[in-house]
Amino acid sequence: MDFSPSPRAAELTDAVRSFIRDEIAPVEDALQLRQAEARRAGGEVDLWQVPREMHELRRKARRQGLWNLFLPAGHEGPYAERFGTRGGTGLSNVDYAPIAEATGWSFLAPYVFNCNAPDTGNAEVLLRYGSQEQKDRWLDPLLEGRIRSAFAMTEPGVASSDATTMQLTAVVEGDDVVLNGRKWWTTGIGHPDCEILLVMGLTDPDAPKYARHSMVLVPRDTPGVKVERMLDTMGFLDEPFGHGEVSFTNVRVPVSNIVAGPGRAFEIAQGRLGPGRVHHAMRMIGLAERALRLACERGLARTAFGQPLADLGGNRERIAEARIAIDSARLLILNAAWKLDTVGAAGALSEVSAIKVAAPQVAQQVIDFAMQIHGGAGLSSDFPLAGAWTAARAVRLADGPDEVHKGVVARIELGRHGAAR
Amino acid sequence: MDFSPSPRAAELTDAVRSFIRDEIAPVEDALQLRQAEARRAGGEVDLWQVPREMHELRRKARRQGLWNLFLPAGHEGPYAERFGTRGGTGLSNVDYAPIAEATGWSFLAPYVFNCNAPDTGNAEVLLRYGSQEQKDRWLDPLLEGRIRSAFAMTEPGVASSDATTMQLTAVVEGDDVVLNGRKWWTTGIGHPDCEILLVMGLTDPDAPKYARHSMVLVPRDTPGVKVERMLDTMGFLDEPFGHGEVSFTNVRVPVSNIVAGPGRAFEIAQGRLGPGRVHHAMRMIGLAERALRLACERGLARTAFGQPLADLGGNRERIAEARIAIDSARLLILNAAWKLDTVGAAGALSEVSAIKVAAPQVAQQVIDFAMQIHGGAGLSSDFPLAGAWTAARAVRLADGPDEVHKGVVARIELGRHGAAR
Amino acid sequence: MDFSPSPRAAELTDAVRSFIRDEIAPVEDALQLRQAEARRAGGEVDLWQVPREMHELRRKARRQGLWNLFLPAGHEGPYAERFGTRGGTGLSNVDYAPIAEATGWSFLAPYVFNCNAPDTGNAEVLLRYGSQEQKDRWLDPLLEGRIRSAFAMTEPGVASSDATTMQLTAVVEGDDVVLNGRKWWTTGIGHPDCEILLVMGLTDPDAPKYARHSMVLVPRDTPGVKVERMLDTMGFLDEPFGHGEVSFTNVRVPVSNIVAGPGRAFEIAQGRLGPGRVHHAMRMIGLAERALRLACERGLARTAFGQPLADLGGNRERIAEARIAIDSARLLILNAAWKLDTVGAAGALSEVSAIKVAAPQVAQQVIDFAMQIHGGAGLSSDFPLAGAWTAARAVRLADGPDEVHKGVVARIELGRHGAAR
Amino acid sequence: MDFSPSPRAAELTDAVRSFIRDEIAPVEDALQLRQAEARRAGGEVDLWQVPREMHELRRKARRQGLWNLFLPAGHEGPYAERFGTRGGTGLSNVDYAPIAEATGWSFLAPYVFNCNAPDTGNAEVLLRYGSQEQKDRWLDPLLEGRIRSAFAMTEPGVASSDATTMQLTAVVEGDDVVLNGRKWWTTGIGHPDCEILLVMGLTDPDAPKYARHSMVLVPRDTPGVKVERMLDTMGFLDEPFGHGEVSFTNVRVPVSNIVAGPGRAFEIAQGRLGPGRVHHAMRMIGLAERALRLACERGLARTAFGQPLADLGGNRERIAEARIAIDSARLLILNAAWKLDTVGAAGALSEVSAIKVAAPQVAQQVIDFAMQIHGGAGLSSDFPLAGAWTAARAVRLADGPDEVHKGVVARIELGRHGAAR
Repeated sequence: MDFSPSPRAAELTDAVRSFIRDEIAPVEDALQLRQAEARRAGGEVDLWQVPREMHELRRKARRQGLWNLFLPAGHEGPYAERFGTRGGTGLSNVDYAPIAEATGWSFLAPYVFNCNAPDTGNAEVLLRYGSQEQKDRWLDPLLEGRIRSAFAMTEPGVASSDATTMQLTAVVEGDDVVLNGRKWWTTGIGHPDCEILLVMGLTDPDAPKYARHSMVLVPRDTPGVKVERMLDTMGFLDEPFGHGEVSFTNVRVPVSNIVAGPGRAFEIAQGRLGPGRVHHAMRMIGLAERALRLACERGLARTAFGQPLADLGGNRERIAEARIAIDSARLLILNAAWKLDTVGAAGALSEVSAIKVAAPQVAQQVIDFAMQIHGGAGLSSDFPLAGAWTAARAVRLADGPDEVHKGVVARIELGRHGAAR
Repeated sequence: MDFSPSPRAAELTDAVRSFIRDEIAPVEDALQLRQAEARRAGGEVDLWQVPREMHELRRKARRQGLWNLFLPAGHEGPYAERFGTRGGTGLSNVDYAPIAEATGWSFLAPYVFNCNAPDTGNAEVLLRYGSQEQKDRWLDPLLEGRIRSAFAMTEPGVASSDATTMQLTAVVEGDDVVLNGRKWWTTGIGHPDCEILLVMGLTDPDAPKYARHSMVLVPRDTPGVKVERMLDTMGFLDEPFGHGEVSFTNVRVPVSNIVAGPGRAFEIAQGRLGPGRVHHAMRMIGLAERALRLACERGLARTAFGQPLADLGGNRERIAEARIAIDSARLLILNAAWKLDTVGAAGALSEVSAIKVAAPQVAQQVIDFAMQIHGGAGLSSDFPLAGAWTAARAVRLADGPDEVHKGVVARIELGRHGAAR
Repeated sequence: MDFSPSPRAAELTDAVRSFIRDEIAPVEDALQLRQAEARRAGGEVDLWQVPREMHELRRKARRQGLWNLFLPAGHEGPYAERFGTRGGTGLSNVDYAPIAEATGWSFLAPYVFNCNAPDTGNAEVLLRYGSQEQKDRWLDPLLEGRIRSAFAMTEPGVASSDATTMQLTAVVEGDDVVLNGRKWWTTGIGHPDCEILLVMGLTDPDAPKYARHSMVLVPRDTPGVKVERMLDTMGFLDEPFGHGEVSFTNVRVPVSNIVAGPGRAFEIAQGRLGPGRVHHAMRMIGLAERALRLACERGLARTAFGQPLADLGGNRERIAEARIAIDSARLLILNAAWKLDTVGAAGALSEVSAIKVAAPQVAQQVIDFAMQIHGGAGLSSDFPLAGAWTAARAVRLADGPDEVHKGVVARIELGRHGAAR
Repeated sequence: MDFSPSPRAAELTDAVRSFIRDEIAPVEDALQLRQAEARRAGGEVDLWQVPREMHELRRKARRQGLWNLFLPAGHEGPYAERFGTRGGTGLSNVDYAPIAEATGWSFLAPYVFNCNAPDTGNAEVLLRYGSQEQKDRWLDPLLEGRIRSAFAMTEPGVASSDATTMQLTAVVEGDDVVLNGRKWWTTGIGHPDCEILLVMGLTDPDAPKYARHSMVLVPRDTPGVKVERMLDTMGFLDEPFGHGEVSFTNVRVPVSNIVAGPGRAFEIAQGRLGPGRVHHAMRMIGLAERALRLACERGLARTAFGQPLADLGGNRERIAEARIAIDSARLLILNAAWKLDTVGAAGALSEVSAIKVAAPQVAQQVIDFAMQIHGGAGLSSDFPLAGAWTAARAVRLADGPDEVHKGVVARIELGRHGAAR
């Protein structure tokens, strides 16, 4: 139960924090204003283009080896070394956790460090399950930062919290696999560099429930792939990544594009999500810490009824509750990371589902308080709080709603007392 | 304690409900899609223009006398009759409450019926405190629907929850009053028909605390009035009304533009807010009812893990909690309305503050559940839930944050036991 | 939707309040100390005897006609007049509600006014479903106050929240009905005057689910009825009424002791519970009001860190939340009472279940806060708060747990949208 | 951040768990029934006597070296060795934490292992601040298990959450210190072996605020010490330890009985509470785990509406929430323990206050759910849940109410942003 980062991880965390504070934050503030202005004005700025400053930040991060830090220890083969991670090897989950928290302070940081979803998860899938050919073709440029990827699982017509209901077909016809159907919340598809989609499709409806679906690599420009529209999350389009509704009409790719072979989508999806959930959850902690800092600063700086806001009513109690909730959630996540590192994903199912539930809930609560203490300003684009809240809200649904994850935790708990399911 | 609407009010409520269902809803759905599309596309559609269909709906509503229904019984003089309210007289708060709830089902309805904030509150101010000249000049066209108004109180530089801190100056110089300073969250200023601003300014810093400020009528086109930018609420600009940050630089208007004379801003603001809070709160109930309906429909229509979503986990409990919370809050509001009708604003301070706290909280809770049961769709523009949630969130700050209103309720409660404040 | 009590009910409420304040409260305080002392000392005082002062209070209440006020309008025949209710007729639910709230301020008042559970519910059963012979034999002395009764439904071996699982048998053999089995939480059986039990038993296991059970009147002294032990609720035995675990061994009574005939227990139980739940819920409101008063008084009287406790941290917010929650719950109950009066129990199912959920929850929350602001004293017998909390906690289970009632509310809500169940 | 127990601590934890399961649990169940029966019957059994079985258990525990395990590493001098702790040295907070959790599963275990409050805290005070003479006279027999002690701090007349308000005087007169005043919630004074009281008294009202009070060792049989009555906590007297209201009338002891000299009570109280709060908090975790186990077992064993209770409504969600909350709180406590071990009490103020708030809250929530799923049985003495809930409730007030501890956490948090207090 040792949650301490290794010296190297501690050093990397410091470097990431400094980079965010010194390099990213000034750009982020300027960009945020520019983008808010662009949204107000309509049309003049194309938010779907990656701003020039971002390219520069990415180059700088890469030069410092703050690059692909998400690569997992033990699975990365030569990739961490080949693609520029400082130290040249992947990190354990416990080691990457504080780095993920640090990147949660900034909306831009994950991309700057080439550590953003869904590319991280997609890269991990390729790393663990991809053929050498698949790796060469897509993993290398992803880690290089030359291309982006998207992940297409959720469908508009079914309750996607039960992934066995997915209906898009991925039928093997000779040497090809042919996809027909519709996905949405295909995250990352709006990015100008997006070149590859990881698509979950139904291959064999007669197979056992969890062996029916395949995970298929579909190049973005394959005929029949059409982005019908981009979806917003509570008003935010999350440019330049975005979430697309995508139709697949007789989309034909070689059968060798199926990752790990037909029928293994569930196995892959599970493996993909463990560390990813630690990343997400720790970013939520970073977000919550930032919100608490803003709340304290505002609470001390502004005065009403003759007192600093922080001293009015229940505000100090809420600050304490925020600190307690954040620290509790962080420790819960570190524990899940440590379980992943020591016993693997299969032994950490309950722990990983637990953080999926707890982290966004804590973040939402703290951010909501921070918004409230900021008054109207807290809801506006002058502060990152509205965006932060929306991000946390979305995480309560992304990768499975709270309710499904609570179901997992309860199933394992009751299983200890003999329940069959 | 009779909360039953009068027969006339019941008839009006039915008419409003039918009008919303038959006339407004189809337009609203189409407009929402068009606007979401416009936001995605950027720039082609000017969301700050009132869509053609809206003009038509307003004409139709007016012809049916579903117009200015907010006008309060007993204060409206000949206005309800002159400006087309069916029945020709104003309504009590208890009578208007179910109408307000009905309009809460639609984002467009309040404007269609000429019953939208901040125009209703501004009209009430003019009705109760305005000189005949002020009424003729601004109240008539407001009730006619020819012009719109804005309300400028909150300031960016101070904690506006304590309104005594307002710093914009409104200095009487001879026959003029001169305004200098900056406001934000000036709601309504974006509307193309906005012609008049109600501005709260500091006139006499040496007067007793609650007699320092004045409420000034400032025509929108007065030199020195500048909209610096429009503010968003969690990504929503609330076009075509909008919330502006407005600078006032040597803005000079006749002293006769001060409502009720210098130093009476607090008195006016208090009088303005009682019925307005009932309206807001009942609209929150309508919003919550709509969200609950959507949640039930989705919960029955979609299936996961072999069961309707409604039957999974704690969903039925949440549906019950939503019903209980909505009904409790509605009754609390009706009680506040009844107190306003029977003992007046001064005797209903606690009750009005209570609904200001309770209503948006209930709405938020129910809408959040509805979003969750919709999955990703619930966060998107395909459903009105994200907008509804944001509206409810904003109400927790608008017209004073929750915390200030809880302070009022506690002060009155403790006063019953001898507390001095 | 008129929740105002009639003038007679208002007058009775005032009389009840005065009687509690002037007559009962002094006795109650003295008794509470004596009983706490008795519990500490062990054995000297028999808490299962009705204290002498209680007899005197009951005589006085009866002389003033504050007696059997629970008798329902329209069903009471000549009983209200014959047995001393001031005004001589029963009261509607809306009229009785404020009286029930008033009695909630005191643990003794319900018994003093001959309005205590389970006698009220048992009397209602006899009134509505009893034969004339049953009424003459048991209802008259109950209303007279000469005997007490008990209610035996819950069983130790099954999940009694699903009452169809009850296993005690009540088999018709010729002119007799023979009972065998075990009940617990048989409330009232400890009272020295308890002479009659209302027992729910399984008569015909092959009948339709809700027609299998009968409600049988069993005299306390029938051979085979044995109180195995008295049960405590969080340490409280609720003397002198108490809750017994009772075994029934070949208990034989005439078949004419079955209320309304075999197989009608569910119908009777439902009819029994509607008004009773209004009474319970309003008593919870009285309890919560008393707790809030104590909290305010303590909050103003005690000082820490240089300020009255009421002004520290979030205490004022909690006082406001308590006021809002109490008022909301009271209105919800009045609405349920009004529905019962106007459309009857069948049309008020959801409303009655809603108050069963909401009222004890609000009471618990307010009492918990009051305990907290009292410090250690709040948990001790020096204040009525610990007993009040326990009473509210027990109501969350008595007459069906929260969860079952939420299920009813959800079923009706979903039914509006087409759900079959 | 290594929360793993040492091999020795792990071995001790296993031994403690086995001892509780095999030796204590059977006795505890039997005793609980006997005591519940005694309370019902009144008077025959003297609950203030230590049952014979307890003496036997204590002897057995001591023989196995499961004795005085609470003794802190580094401060225990030769005591752990002299008084029988297996391994002969004290344990770090991280090492003792899982042992404390294990003892939380049983109400008797802390006493059986000679690790019960307030004796542990009092022993620590003597260990750290006592003179050799004080240690010889009272610490040795305490660790030996021959005597018990009490702690007298809270007073009935003041808000004891602000300990500077304590009014009992402890005036130095020549070679004596003379105590006059009244304490309550003097825990431990009811025990037949109680021989020594640690009393906080006001010595110099003119000294700086935190240097006015002294901590005085007062033998139980000193003339003028009178137990006025024993106090109950929500009906529980916590025999045979109990909480007394104690008057001190001209109680005269040698000035050498002042621990560490006059005016140092606050310093001592602070030092006393750090590890003690870890113990309390971890016992809360043990209690919560036990409640969750009971809830799962009952939820699987009982059926209603055709399904195991665990599968009804939101029960699985609540099981998951319980698991998440317990694990979060445990980690938070381990972190506080680790801070205490690595940076000391002064550096762990916020962490220790945080667990004081979080642990009983989690325990209450989980126990309340467990009670609910047990139905009426959950509130009765047939299960340990009612007692467990009450214990958790009391911890929210003991050693300072939640609100005071939130104040500490907030003060430290705001201090990081420059707040002066």
